[in-house]
Amino acid sequence: MNESIASLLFSCPDRVGIIAALANYFSEKGLSICRYEEYADAGRFFSRLEWQLNDRWQTEKAFNEEFTSFANEFDAKFEVRFFSRTQTLGLLASKQPHALIEIINKQEAGYFPNTSIAFILSNDESMAKIAKRHEIPFHFVATKDRETSDYEAEQLAIIQKYKPDYLGLARYMKVLSASFLQHSTCPIINIHHSFLPSFVGARPYQMAYDRGVKLIGATSHFVTEDLDQGPIIEQDVQRVTTGASVQDMIKMGRDIEKRVFAQALSKALENKAIVHKNRTIIFN
Amino acid sequence: MNESIASLLFSCPDRVGIIAALANYFSEKGLSICRYEEYADAGRFFSRLEWQLNDRWQTEKAFNEEFTSFANEFDAKFEVRFFSRTQTLGLLASKQPHALIEIINKQEAGYFPNTSIAFILSNDESMAKIAKRHEIPFHFVATKDRETSDYEAEQLAIIQKYKPDYLGLARYMKVLSASFLQHSTCPIINIHHSFLPSFVGARPYQMAYDRGVKLIGATSHFVTEDLDQGPIIEQDVQRVTTGASVQDMIKMGRDIEKRVFAQALSKALENKAIVHKNRTIIFN
Amino acid sequence: MNESIASLLFSCPDRVGIIAALANYFSEKGLSICRYEEYADAGRFFSRLEWQLNDRWQTEKAFNEEFTSFANEFDAKFEVRFFSRTQTLGLLASKQPHALIEIINKQEAGYFPNTSIAFILSNDESMAKIAKRHEIPFHFVATKDRETSDYEAEQLAIIQKYKPDYLGLARYMKVLSASFLQHSTCPIINIHHSFLPSFVGARPYQMAYDRGVKLIGATSHFVTEDLDQGPIIEQDVQRVTTGASVQDMIKMGRDIEKRVFAQALSKALENKAIVHKNRTIIFN
Amino acid sequence: MNESIASLLFSCPDRVGIIAALANYFSEKGLSICRYEEYADAGRFFSRLEWQLNDRWQTEKAFNEEFTSFANEFDAKFEVRFFSRTQTLGLLASKQPHALIEIINKQEAGYFPNTSIAFILSNDESMAKIAKRHEIPFHFVATKDRETSDYEAEQLAIIQKYKPDYLGLARYMKVLSASFLQHSTCPIINIHHSFLPSFVGARPYQMAYDRGVKLIGATSHFVTEDLDQGPIIEQDVQRVTTGASVQDMIKMGRDIEKRVFAQALSKALENKAIVHKNRTIIFN
Repeated sequence: MNESIASLLFSCPDRVGIIAALANYFSEKGLSICRYEEYADAGRFFSRLEWQLNDRWQTEKAFNEEFTSFANEFDAKFEVRFFSRTQTLGLLASKQPHALIEIINKQEAGYFPNTSIAFILSNDESMAKIAKRHEIPFHFVATKDRETSDYEAEQLAIIQKYKPDYLGLARYMKVLSASFLQHSTCPIINIHHSFLPSFVGARPYQMAYDRGVKLIGATSHFVTEDLDQGPIIEQDVQRVTTGASVQDMIKMGRDIEKRVFAQALSKALENKAIVHKNRTIIFN
Repeated sequence: MNESIASLLFSCPDRVGIIAALANYFSEKGLSICRYEEYADAGRFFSRLEWQLNDRWQTEKAFNEEFTSFANEFDAKFEVRFFSRTQTLGLLASKQPHALIEIINKQEAGYFPNTSIAFILSNDESMAKIAKRHEIPFHFVATKDRETSDYEAEQLAIIQKYKPDYLGLARYMKVLSASFLQHSTCPIINIHHSFLPSFVGARPYQMAYDRGVKLIGATSHFVTEDLDQGPIIEQDVQRVTTGASVQDMIKMGRDIEKRVFAQALSKALENKAIVHKNRTIIFN
Repeated sequence: MNESIASLLFSCPDRVGIIAALANYFSEKGLSICRYEEYADAGRFFSRLEWQLNDRWQTEKAFNEEFTSFANEFDAKFEVRFFSRTQTLGLLASKQPHALIEIINKQEAGYFPNTSIAFILSNDESMAKIAKRHEIPFHFVATKDRETSDYEAEQLAIIQKYKPDYLGLARYMKVLSASFLQHSTCPIINIHHSFLPSFVGARPYQMAYDRGVKLIGATSHFVTEDLDQGPIIEQDVQRVTTGASVQDMIKMGRDIEKRVFAQALSKALENKAIVHKNRTIIFN
Repeated sequence: MNESIASLLFSCPDRVGIIAALANYFSEKGLSICRYEEYADAGRFFSRLEWQLNDRWQTEKAFNEEFTSFANEFDAKFEVRFFSRTQTLGLLASKQPHALIEIINKQEAGYFPNTSIAFILSNDESMAKIAKRHEIPFHFVATKDRETSDYEAEQLAIIQKYKPDYLGLARYMKVLSASFLQHSTCPIINIHHSFLPSFVGARPYQMAYDRGVKLIGATSHFVTEDLDQGPIIEQDVQRVTTGASVQDMIKMGRDIEKRVFAQALSKALENKAIVHKNRTIIFN
């Protein structure tokens, strides 16, 4: 994604003339919409557009100040992203490295738009090695035999120091408390090792095996207070071959998890995900 | 599948030497195993083999009588199928014809091994037209405003007249009672319009839409007394495009349903499905 | 697709302000664009929009007459479709019925927008039975041991009598001559039994088997004078299981063929396919 | 895969009694076949079996010496693998790291059975960094402006020093000469950035884009003297969204490439791939 591009997510109650109004708003300022996508759904209008950045607005803040009055006319919610600004991503991980490594390598390969990984925070010291390899700041916060409120305070202090745009839970195995979610200042994206809502909870591959499902999957979603119930960003599945053991399914599952997680983070970082009523509208 | 072939499903507690014993059993009788597949799973051994029919055994019954003592040595369950015998399939349907039509057309195209459709039984008179087109016996049994025990007795009388090898529920929308299942003399295969166990019940597409899942699916399973909980034979999914309505998902879903149902019936009719502990072992 | 809807495909060289101009064109006439989608590609702009029909234009012809001057300003090509008008589809088939039956059943199930099947034309008399079942006019034109120009003249006479909006080649096994294509007055859509461009020609499953590919597929494309080289509308694949014979692959392939063909016809009938430089732009 | 397991690939002209003979061979030695799979194809029999290693044979060499006379009776080819022995993999790479990194991370995660990465050999010095991170021996051999025979001699000298069991071409962008292939002492596995045989050659994504295909893929195959024509081990595809540019396709493609390459190497390292007549038989 080119760094000279800005994108806008815009959603409001559906009515006649929104496209014309949006298009005119930009063309009157001499700006050309170079990409546009929209969906209408149950009386609500969702759109995303891109334009070439120029000196009309220097910062997202400047755009927000000017655009708010237009948005208010439509009772709209919007979110702007200038890809000239480097976004930051904080990653939480536990013991399993596959999702974490995938995100780091994709960030290094330029898969995400102008994004840096601000830090890795883990409750497992073995993750330090990976952070060091890739020269990413690492923080260890022990969680074992500690009060949740205690270690979460420590985690939040670290997160607040970096103020990342997004937090990614790269197979972080502790449930975040309601208090943590309230104090977190950015959206949090989780990868769940199951095709939700099939197998919520901690041992989905065993459950999938016992139930004899023929496909296993993974789900990446925004984290909300309802565990495993947040708005789904991306899902995928893979066929289970006859004779596959629970261990085989776990191994297959890791591949799906890392792929789905990277894809979901990508959608968020590209400003392509609107949350509405516990659903997401995902743009191409 | 060639009509000169027989197949055997054989499962037993796992131990040393089962393959050798099975192979020797057949080779001593001058019969060659022309296809063989096996899985071991949690201490149990599952296998399927095929051989060329000759005059060694004239009927499945003759084979069963002779083979039982061998099977007993291994504490095994087995099921033999001679594809020289025409299997019969009875179909139950309600108002939606897509799954029914698919099965009829695939039967006519020779997709199933030596199988005839014995009858169509419906609680909707509009299905008569389809039955007539394809010259299949049709029975209408009204279910509306009637006691379950009443109409099921009528249905069972029809089924018992035909004695089909399998009953297929081609989007038949009434729940079969425990009594029906006890009196039915053949396995019953259902197509459920959801990727189980995600959305049990009657309105899965609405539920999938509300939950914002990114893939919808269908599941075909053996019918047991636990509604939507029977052993899964086949499942598949398809990606939901952004902007798809519940109606779009229903339309997409029908394609998955008919494909999955045909595939599941095929596995049963080819003698490739063993049920064990609410799971199925499906052979290639 | 609702019959009170109209759709417009619009493509032109990319430049600033096209969306605004299109949106204003409709809003000035008091019409609301209820669905809009666009892509830009190598300097060209492609869009599709829908609006609620009212008495502003009574017919596609009326719209065309008025819209042409607007389109000319942008050096644009466009195609309008009022779904209030019943579109007609002519089907050509040979001996294999699976693709033909799928289209008929999907048409009957309302899968296509306001579409009727005008006729079935075949070089195999066995197709008459299917046509009769569904009360569709049937024409047999023998091709065996005849000159191409001879039987094509007969075919064209039939087609010109019906003047269908589209011709679908439902596994019609003769190559259409350049002359046929020049005299045909509507787009022609073929289903090719291969994942093009992998295996052009007549025996793709044998070729796929010999090459040991792990996935087989089907491709539906607009027919052009370059055999198997026309713009691709839809493709799909399925995994080949180890041990699958050429016959197994043919059987699997038929399922993919009918699904892909129905999907491609659906895209054309919904006015969602623009051809540009031997590629198609397909809208959601 | 447990290190106490041995596996045998066995193929021969099909005839009566092979399974019985194989099963008896092992059971007479008090060994239990714990996994067995077979296929018959065009008159040839292919099978793979596993047994628990004990002191009957201490090495692959010991097994080979004893088993050869049995195999000769059936005119069979066979390949044994004791997973107690650490297999070694050499990796060749050029500038793109995604396939290389995937294999390294999967090796570290225990995805491959008892396998170590012996070395990385590259014609691009930037790969040294990755090798260093993971403490893998690295060798740079320049290819630019040099005679093929010259740099290949240098490469072969390195490879012959390590004598790896397999060479993996992790997006190595030079064509290996016939001479190189003759002097290489192990199978070589390549990842090709296309769904072969669709787009052979160097720029498949551009070709796929120009042809307007709706799915792009990757193919991993054994390397033979016919460029891009070797026996296919694994393939996969992904749907191209409308509006995707060549760059988008390359990005999507990398994900498929690394997944397919890892899967193919896994099949080889698990002793699950038999080559026969430019096809592979791949076991589960």
